[in-house]
Amino acid sequence: MTGFSFSLSATDGKARTGAITTLRGTIRTPAFMPVGTAATVKAMLPESVAATGADILLGNTYHLMLRPGAERVDRLGGLHEFMNWSKPILTDSGGFQVMSLAGLRKLTEEGVAFKSHIDGSRHMLTPERSMEIQRLLGSDIVMCFDECPALPAEEKAVAESMRLSMRWAQRSRDAFGDRPGHALFGIQQGGVTRDLRAESAEALQEIGFDGYAVGGLAVGEGQEIMFDVLDFAPDMLPVDKPRYLMGVGKPDDIVGAVKRGIDMMDCVLPSRSGRTGQVFTRRGVVNIKNARHADDPRPLDEGCSCPACRGYSRAYLHHVFRAQEMISGMLLTWHNLQYYQDLMAGMREAIAAGTFCDWENQFHADRALGDIEPV
Amino acid sequence: MTGFSFSLSATDGKARTGAITTLRGTIRTPAFMPVGTAATVKAMLPESVAATGADILLGNTYHLMLRPGAERVDRLGGLHEFMNWSKPILTDSGGFQVMSLAGLRKLTEEGVAFKSHIDGSRHMLTPERSMEIQRLLGSDIVMCFDECPALPAEEKAVAESMRLSMRWAQRSRDAFGDRPGHALFGIQQGGVTRDLRAESAEALQEIGFDGYAVGGLAVGEGQEIMFDVLDFAPDMLPVDKPRYLMGVGKPDDIVGAVKRGIDMMDCVLPSRSGRTGQVFTRRGVVNIKNARHADDPRPLDEGCSCPACRGYSRAYLHHVFRAQEMISGMLLTWHNLQYYQDLMAGMREAIAAGTFCDWENQFHADRALGDIEPV
Repeated sequence: MTGFSFSLSATDGKARTGAITTLRGTIRTPAFMPVGTAATVKAMLPESVAATGADILLGNTYHLMLRPGAERVDRLGGLHEFMNWSKPILTDSGGFQVMSLAGLRKLTEEGVAFKSHIDGSRHMLTPERSMEIQRLLGSDIVMCFDECPALPAEEKAVAESMRLSMRWAQRSRDAFGDRPGHALFGIQQGGVTRDLRAESAEALQEIGFDGYAVGGLAVGEGQEIMFDVLDFAPDMLPVDKPRYLMGVGKPDDIVGAVKRGIDMMDCVLPSRSGRTGQVFTRRGVVNIKNARHADDPRPLDEGCSCPACRGYSRAYLHHVFRAQEMISGMLLTWHNLQYYQDLMAGMREAIAAGTFCDWENQFHADRALGDIEPV
Repeated sequence: MTGFSFSLSATDGKARTGAITTLRGTIRTPAFMPVGTAATVKAMLPESVAATGADILLGNTYHLMLRPGAERVDRLGGLHEFMNWSKPILTDSGGFQVMSLAGLRKLTEEGVAFKSHIDGSRHMLTPERSMEIQRLLGSDIVMCFDECPALPAEEKAVAESMRLSMRWAQRSRDAFGDRPGHALFGIQQGGVTRDLRAESAEALQEIGFDGYAVGGLAVGEGQEIMFDVLDFAPDMLPVDKPRYLMGVGKPDDIVGAVKRGIDMMDCVLPSRSGRTGQVFTRRGVVNIKNARHADDPRPLDEGCSCPACRGYSRAYLHHVFRAQEMISGMLLTWHNLQYYQDLMAGMREAIAAGTFCDWENQFHADRALGDIEPV
């Protein structure tokens, strides 16, 4: 496909580093994609998101189709122009979110009929409509329309769901057509069952995609089971295509996923946590609301280059969080996104140097220290 | 006073332009001071406030004494260090805000006893305590502790209130002491009555201050009455000291005040309006919530250099306001503060060029056009 390619530059164990090239720029892998649900990464200006080192954002088809509407975004020049972000954008298919609308949606072979959570209006998402919406948005990396059950689930239900998703994958591929410079990713399903994961991987490769996601994880199964699946599921996907683990995760989830051969991830955690006062640091999670920070002149993390750490004390961040000032969400989100991007950069460097194992040991050792002692 | 001075470089009618020099930098006058109530200009990073052209911020003694507390700010290196703002800060005395706590405060000759709106804790503000708090905060320009009645009010009540404020002005002066590099401003009271304004101005000048505020306006009297008072009140104050109109105002209030010889102003309006979707432009106020913007690809104001106008359409700003995204308050506040600073810069330039009258006519003509036609 013209304008979209993936190349690996180094591997270390199963961990891989490389680059995805798109018409809108290069994505260094392993890559973490901040989530811009409603055409904004909450509490951030796009230039600030870029300043953290993010090469790509994720946009949500479900939210954008409802508000402001895909046809409107198209008339306004596409999502990049609309939200003032010129680098690549990956959009999900909307499938995961509409399936979460318990009681408000109805699943058929054709697709999912649902009611908007905003105004109760009726909508239908199908593989064909999802491809159309993602085209209207101008997404660089388009995801197949799929669905998945929450875990744990009966193997029979997981198998039926996976096979429906594979039929939808074929319909997505057909509807996507030939769009030079835009990539279509398939999504492996099959829950925690090796045979189903293998069947799904085979079905997807028969259709042929520009990249492959591991779907249906981070849906309630816990880290141990997720890692068990990641011990075999990514190996079933082509070596020469990017592998994307959807909706993951906490820092140690991300490290464990990269270790198991994942190239791309996304999660709302760093931005959502920023708004609720949960801060990710090298030494673990800090709750800025805690009274122990009220008189602490030290930064969140001495080693961090973000504006929150360069310009402000924990005492200030504690104060503005307590006072419910917007600058609290702005600074803590920035810090968390910076932490995630620094994490990815550290892993890329370690994989390239062949020192991923040492890097991972240090990562866990730093976290075991716990937050710095109170003043 | 060492480290604090005021010099006029030009006048045009009663309008004046010049500069206040402080140890922390120069304040170009006429100056608009954004309000940083709780150690943050809401929805803005301080470097963004500076980027709009603001030379000075206002901090609120009442809010800061309650949370995080003046002694704590002092321990943490002062308000500049705490909030990451290195340019000058003016603090109010807390008097206006505690007097607004109807039912929660008691006024005596000594000062005002009140209960915190945050936790109901009991506090006392006196001229001496206000001076101490403003010193602990590290304020560059300290305001006398005063009080004023809402207008309209009986002349007798206004006179008694003004005379109490003048006794408090003397106590403020005594308590302030000699603090090179830090300025103390007196506050003229007297409501709408010429004789009382004159009496107040004379009392203040006998005490002697580094600058003089016109207080007790913008408290419900309306623009016409405010301008009537500004037609005579500033003339009663020394020509060679800065004149500060407290709590003003809308763009046309500000233009009318500068025309009448005011050098400094502050108001929450641009930042508060930014959060509620009210946008100030050359052609008047725009309500971004209005459905007419939903498909409008044009910027808020073609001539504005702020990030909201450079990077986003009205359609986007409408979308993120409706979706209650934080970026809405961030971008609209930035725009409004930029508009206010551009307004001040335009007036400074016009006064220097002796063309203030032409400038003012154009200002009103532009506003009379109304917002641009819908697409």
